Amino acid sequence: MAHYSKGANAERELISILWQNNFSVVRTAGSGTSPLPAPDLVALSKEKKLAFECKAWNAGYLNIPLKQMEEQLFWCERAGAELIVAWKIPRQGFLFLRPEAFTKVGKSYAISRKKALTSAINLGIILGQQSKLGMQ
Amino acid sequence: MAHYSKGANAERELISILWQNNFSVVRTAGSGTSPLPAPDLVALSKEKKLAFECKAWNAGYLNIPLKQMEEQLFWCERAGAELIVAWKIPRQGFLFLRPEAFTKVGKSYAISRKKALTSAINLGIILGQQSKLGMQ
Repeated sequence: MAHYSKGANAERELISILWQNNFSVVRTAGSGTSPLPAPDLVALSKEKKLAFECKAWNAGYLNIPLKQMEEQLFWCERAGAELIVAWKIPRQGFLFLRPEAFTKVGKSYAISRKKALTSAINLGIILGQQSKLGMQ
Repeated sequence: MAHYSKGANAERELISILWQNNFSVVRTAGSGTSPLPAPDLVALSKEKKLAFECKAWNAGYLNIPLKQMEEQLFWCERAGAELIVAWKIPRQGFLFLRPEAFTKVGKSYAISRKKALTSAINLGIILGQQSKLGMQ
């Protein structure tokens, strides 16, 4: 329950950030109704289609099961959307990661916190508000 | 409960149709978490952004509260998406309606079943698979 709440809070926080940046956001309903599960949040502006998978996880690694990542990549490919993993680290904020930053390890895609800190992308770039690297 | 189930079944049916037509679909989670409620379904392809409000209603009229329609139109405007009302009539299938087909009556946007039957748009046109009117 505590873990669920943290995830729900991270989603809510990200929805609010995206909304303030002029994106319309939809939070995905529980699974079981779609032929293929959608990522947690879909954010749309006139120019951009973004899909976010939110993870609130206070650990040295983040693992995403192969099947989950591949289903979401397929969902995004059909949608013409970019997939971003939003890793919320308590008291450090979000690290925004592209799937390519992860490495296949056993039955998961994994990334270390250390690598995530150096691979994270500035939200302004993801949202299309910055064309080159600014202040991280 | 019976009414809820009919609505949920209509959503499921529409998700399946959209999926078969190469759209990725997200079903919106219950309200309360978004600054502005999203329509019931958001369907994306590489070219199109569509938002559907599903209504399963076996009556001579369909009414949508002003506030609900206006919030959804604003959501769609920010998203650069088209809003379509999908009115499922038992044993007759879906009527796909643009908001302009509705008339402001009191605190609702309303359309009669008779007008809806003549205003409904072919799904192929909505999905961008037909450039002119074909078989309805």
